Amino acid sequence: MPDIRHRVVISAPLERVYEAVATKEGISEWWTRDGVEGESSEGSRLQFFFGQPEPAAVMEITRLSPYGQVSWKCVEGADEWVGTTLDFDLANKDDETVVLFTHADWREPTEFMAHCSARWAYFLLSLKSYQEFGKGTPFPEDLKF
Amino acid sequence: MPDIRHRVVISAPLERVYEAVATKEGISEWWTRDGVEGESSEGSRLQFFFGQPEPAAVMEITRLSPYGQVSWKCVEGADEWVGTTLDFDLANKDDETVVLFTHADWREPTEFMAHCSARWAYFLLSLKSYQEFGKGTPFPEDLKF
Repeated sequence: MPDIRHRVVISAPLERVYEAVATKEGISEWWTRDGVEGESSEGSRLQFFFGQPEPAAVMEITRLSPYGQVSWKCVEGADEWVGTTLDFDLANKDDETVVLFTHADWREPTEFMAHCSARWAYFLLSLKSYQEFGKGTPFPEDLKF
Repeated sequence: MPDIRHRVVISAPLERVYEAVATKEGISEWWTRDGVEGESSEGSRLQFFFGQPEPAAVMEITRLSPYGQVSWKCVEGADEWVGTTLDFDLANKDDETVVLFTHADWREPTEFMAHCSARWAYFLLSLKSYQEFGKGTPFPEDLKF
């Protein structure tokens, strides 16, 4: 099954990058400021809003480890997203944190998947900017493309 | 075999985006300003320089069609790149140009591939910025990550 994989290096401690990916407050600074609702704990669900009354995606949190793993399974949202899994694997390297991001188990390598691949890279660079300069570019401040 | 695929929409005519991807002058505005050498014609080779005396990659041009296709095959460069193929497929959509980029036939989904995936998305947004605002972020002006 085709996967999206990105690697981005961030000049910030792993603990801080983990907070940015694991908490609703953190996620709102780099992915969507329009709303992250639910409880961020293993087995719970998070709803992500992007300008619509309904969430664009609902993720079940399948792993949340402060050692540097955050995993979600998409349970509601775009047809092509439902059933896919998302992993943020964080690792210390020198004084930086390596983020290995995987959005896996797409059924087909569609044009929408290619769109999402570029979008994820953009938002991971938003995460980097948030960590390094205190300001990301989450929706709706994101570049549209 | 794992592939990198990105889709980016650019507010510029297809002919202009094609020039930016098909010519040495164009490529130097969004990928590398450090040097693109050789002849840009089908069957020829282009050398791409990134701050070293040796080219970081040598690509054989396997397709060059003004209808919107530019294809390369990597013949020299990083071990993991040699033998891979790169395609820029351009399509008109309303008044914009859709760029579907594929870097295909990687042997393994390595961490280096994930790095290159995020890098390609970054440089495709550099291409977009060059087309829309007249200024890209090619090497060495690129963000390092």
